[in-house]
Amino acid sequence: MLHSDDMDFLTKYLPLLAKLSETDRAAILASGVRASFEKGTAILDRERECNGLIVVKSGQLRASFNLQDGKELTLYRLLAGDICILSASCVLKNITFEITLEAERDSHVYFIPAVVWAELSGRNPEAKQFTMDLVSERFSEVMWVVEQMATKNMGQRVAAFLLEQSVLDGTEQLSITHDIIAKNLGTAREVVSRVLKYMENDGLLSLSRGKISLMQMKKLREMNH
Amino acid sequence: MLHSDDMDFLTKYLPLLAKLSETDRAAILASGVRASFEKGTAILDRERECNGLIVVKSGQLRASFNLQDGKELTLYRLLAGDICILSASCVLKNITFEITLEAERDSHVYFIPAVVWAELSGRNPEAKQFTMDLVSERFSEVMWVVEQMATKNMGQRVAAFLLEQSVLDGTEQLSITHDIIAKNLGTAREVVSRVLKYMENDGLLSLSRGKISLMQMKKLREMNH
Repeated sequence: MLHSDDMDFLTKYLPLLAKLSETDRAAILASGVRASFEKGTAILDRERECNGLIVVKSGQLRASFNLQDGKELTLYRLLAGDICILSASCVLKNITFEITLEAERDSHVYFIPAVVWAELSGRNPEAKQFTMDLVSERFSEVMWVVEQMATKNMGQRVAAFLLEQSVLDGTEQLSITHDIIAKNLGTAREVVSRVLKYMENDGLLSLSRGKISLMQMKKLREMNH
Repeated sequence: MLHSDDMDFLTKYLPLLAKLSETDRAAILASGVRASFEKGTAILDRERECNGLIVVKSGQLRASFNLQDGKELTLYRLLAGDICILSASCVLKNITFEITLEAERDSHVYFIPAVVWAELSGRNPEAKQFTMDLVSERFSEVMWVVEQMATKNMGQRVAAFLLEQSVLDGTEQLSITHDIIAKNLGTAREVVSRVLKYMENDGLLSLSRGKISLMQMKKLREMNH
């Protein structure tokens, strides 16, 4: 059950809500859910699939693809105002893969149940178009990941990941384990540890338990040019 | 300009055509184009983007993703009856990547111009849904490629590619260069040559100029289990 200030937030990022009939808006208010997730918890996993449309109110979510061998690969991040459509993949015929959503920071999110969204986009061309635009946007983001995987070596990918993390966290002193980096890049921890050790020997960064300090930002950036 | 027997073929794979008004069907007949492409020619490239919806009448097309470093990565194959929606990517807001389509065999295809399809799917919910289902299907196929890239080593990927090629060509004597395999897998020719040499040493296949003979099908299949 949502309130009118929730609806104000949602309408900002889902402008089509403003054009719905009173009945449709009431259905979303009545069925919508607001939930909080602590850093590190799963919002969506294999067992809890198809929650519906997820709109991030605050915090940061990580969407990852579950690989068959138990590894994961980060596809994209969701920040305040971002909307996850693949969390409503049961609405999308032909989407046969599953993603996992995890809170990377303490996060507040809205859920619009899959059945409600499916019913709405079944009869409202704008909602259907919105769904398609979102799927296309995620598809394009995934192609960027594909490009990285095909053209960059693991050193370049680790450097790009650390720089992105540094922007997200607003610091060059990262609190992150080798295991988490490996999960983000869909590779093994040993591979990441080896790459980081090389980078430490080159003076690009400094490693300590659970921490990575980026020492030479310019050189790290140049690795991908 | 298409004829009624073309329309019969198209309707088989685009069933919604049967439900269109006479005016809409006439518009597709008038604007549709039938074209032939010799093996090895490009149907769609960076210069000739957004031809529209492509329906394969006969032959075999390869859809690949253009990587920034000039390499390519095969995303999927299109056989008779298959429809390419990414060739109409200008219709799809938020699709920011480009694909190349190439005839892998002599092929006959139909084009439905992008503007005609855009106009139709703008007002026909079934056409819009069909478009979305196709995009989702291709998205899922790409995720399969992502899975392969993330979890298989190059030896396994080369083996899987050769086995797929053997099924498509109906023979275990493949006429294919190392360069073409590299393009399909988005890697360098030298990497493929090295992997093939290893496989030849192991007795899995035999190499000669422009040809690869698969010798141990069972062992090749086991590489991916």
